Amino acid sequence: MTENITEVTVDVEDSIATVTLRAPQRRNPLSKKTMQAATRLLRELDQDSRVRVIVIAAEGPAFSAGHDLAEVVGAELDDQREIFAACSELMLTLHEVRQPVIAKVAGMALAAGCQLVATSDLAVAADDARFSTPGVKIGLFCSTPMVPLTRAIGRKRAMQMLLTGEMVDAATAAEWGLINQAVPADRLDAVVADLAASIAGSSSATLAIGKRAFYDQIDVSEREAYRLMTETMATNAVACDAREGISAFLEKRPPVWSDR
Amino acid sequence: MTENITEVTVDVEDSIATVTLRAPQRRNPLSKKTMQAATRLLRELDQDSRVRVIVIAAEGPAFSAGHDLAEVVGAELDDQREIFAACSELMLTLHEVRQPVIAKVAGMALAAGCQLVATSDLAVAADDARFSTPGVKIGLFCSTPMVPLTRAIGRKRAMQMLLTGEMVDAATAAEWGLINQAVPADRLDAVVADLAASIAGSSSATLAIGKRAFYDQIDVSEREAYRLMTETMATNAVACDAREGISAFLEKRPPVWSDR
Amino acid sequence: MTENITEVTVDVEDSIATVTLRAPQRRNPLSKKTMQAATRLLRELDQDSRVRVIVIAAEGPAFSAGHDLAEVVGAELDDQREIFAACSELMLTLHEVRQPVIAKVAGMALAAGCQLVATSDLAVAADDARFSTPGVKIGLFCSTPMVPLTRAIGRKRAMQMLLTGEMVDAATAAEWGLINQAVPADRLDAVVADLAASIAGSSSATLAIGKRAFYDQIDVSEREAYRLMTETMATNAVACDAREGISAFLEKRPPVWSDR
Repeated sequence: MTENITEVTVDVEDSIATVTLRAPQRRNPLSKKTMQAATRLLRELDQDSRVRVIVIAAEGPAFSAGHDLAEVVGAELDDQREIFAACSELMLTLHEVRQPVIAKVAGMALAAGCQLVATSDLAVAADDARFSTPGVKIGLFCSTPMVPLTRAIGRKRAMQMLLTGEMVDAATAAEWGLINQAVPADRLDAVVADLAASIAGSSSATLAIGKRAFYDQIDVSEREAYRLMTETMATNAVACDAREGISAFLEKRPPVWSDR
Repeated sequence: MTENITEVTVDVEDSIATVTLRAPQRRNPLSKKTMQAATRLLRELDQDSRVRVIVIAAEGPAFSAGHDLAEVVGAELDDQREIFAACSELMLTLHEVRQPVIAKVAGMALAAGCQLVATSDLAVAADDARFSTPGVKIGLFCSTPMVPLTRAIGRKRAMQMLLTGEMVDAATAAEWGLINQAVPADRLDAVVADLAASIAGSSSATLAIGKRAFYDQIDVSEREAYRLMTETMATNAVACDAREGISAFLEKRPPVWSDR
Repeated sequence: MTENITEVTVDVEDSIATVTLRAPQRRNPLSKKTMQAATRLLRELDQDSRVRVIVIAAEGPAFSAGHDLAEVVGAELDDQREIFAACSELMLTLHEVRQPVIAKVAGMALAAGCQLVATSDLAVAADDARFSTPGVKIGLFCSTPMVPLTRAIGRKRAMQMLLTGEMVDAATAAEWGLINQAVPADRLDAVVADLAASIAGSSSATLAIGKRAFYDQIDVSEREAYRLMTETMATNAVACDAREGISAFLEKRPPVWSDR
């Protein structure tokens, strides 16, 4: 509809949706409109139970250089609030959608681009990918990227990235748990496709239960987490896909999920 | 007393108790009765201050394949609630008992079996052990195993295990912090015995203070954690075993604990 | 002023302050007076915006052996409370000061000495440094060191250190995230000086915003963290050093921070 919406697109194929950032010549900046468009696309996918996995990808040699600095530099406080609220909304939406989200990272993922990777449920990167939260060097500390970064890689390593703005290579990112795997660049598409297909073999209803459960239990005390998850497991266990899945397993046959 | 109680037994030797799952031909399923029996045994050990360390072990080539699926598949909602409440109760009890708990893992630890490993205070595995939370593949997402798993190995790696159900080998489990150490299978018994004996050389009262403190402070804010732990340290420091232990250290002699 | 204050000193050079423990012949014990003096020095540095980075160092072959056991062994409960409150106050102050804190570790860091390393925002150690929380062996469980230790290295590894009191070498500490880096002993000074200088190149105001933000968001739910950090980013983005930093970046020139 607007020119900005062309900066992020979605394609669905075989129950796997790919959301792609498409402004490669500007290193896929996360402008307010791009972030809002991505959030809208994700919310539409959330309503579509045929879609079982979402891949976040980017066109061109960079994944994303982060916020659109030209937009940020001149903005007044209320506009800044809108920009960063749009960013936080996008990140929270990535956790709220029913489908697991895999970030497929080639090239640089900086600032909010790195945040996108840290926020995704899973992430696979080409081994020449690079990660950084360099805001400190331009006077704008990466305080929102810090939220998923600290929760993914722990305190000392997050502090190192945040205070120095240094580039972290893909192998180190995998070792720290920022990504799940670093693979040769020419195998990135195939590895992500296989991972997505493997997850998409599971029941859509079960994936949705599991993803919601994950974020429901992660920030509460262990006792409260068990209280919530005990009920989640019990209700999951009487759902038709669990009855079918367990029966199929005991009968040594493939399951047939309710939405297939 | 009942036939199910024979599926889990306890032996105490030299202040070290070993709780053993004993249904090797069925890969040590965690049926409701087995979990309830294990919880009862742990509570009895908690009352016995002569026991300083608890080892959780399993007979046969598998550690545990998790819940008894034959029990789960036919159950109504209220029965499911009882099954998973019994499981959560067992896991919380592992944290509540006064003694440190070491999981000794040979073979596969799946679903609730993997949860048992993640929940134990320490875990040592044979290098051919395997870990997985494969519930997603049978329509029953491993939502209760997720509680200790996410807290042990972090978000990206927990999501990977939970969403793919893939097998994780012992070396990877050690690298991720799911277990403390992977050792050659023929050394597993000796390594665990040495570790247990080393811990059992400390004061029973001190181990109980420390373990309780650990879980008291882990889920609260840092400031609240310090408030609690400051008082724990101060009261610990005036207890007889601390006075003895510090004096012995300053006098370069071995300590004699109050219960020895 | 008193003889104890000479056990901890501060030197400022080129916007980098070094706080040094100076009782090497007794392995730099953290007596109540030393901890209180260190806290006062840190609070003074917090008021000094010319200081951009704080390094915590120690004289002699050991970093710190922890509490002054001679002081602890005879103390009554109220005195113990004062000792451990002084310790917790020091640790919380390390997080409250506006400047990033780097621990520079040569030799052993034990108990509260290890806590100092775990608490520091960043830590670099000589590759022959050693870390341990050995309180369990003398009847006084390391319950306050446990607070930053569990938050830095995770549950299984913290339990291992706390329950066994074993020594952890620098390479392992780096792998676990207790420190950021282990370097050859003869390069420790240079590596820490470079790291401090690199961070000190950023705006003092920005570093202060970022450090406060880090601890504001770390212990709350993800949603609350985003609420807080969205506002932090927006207000940071309209501050003069961000406007200058982003403009300088877009204009490809070095920034000139407001306090320079």
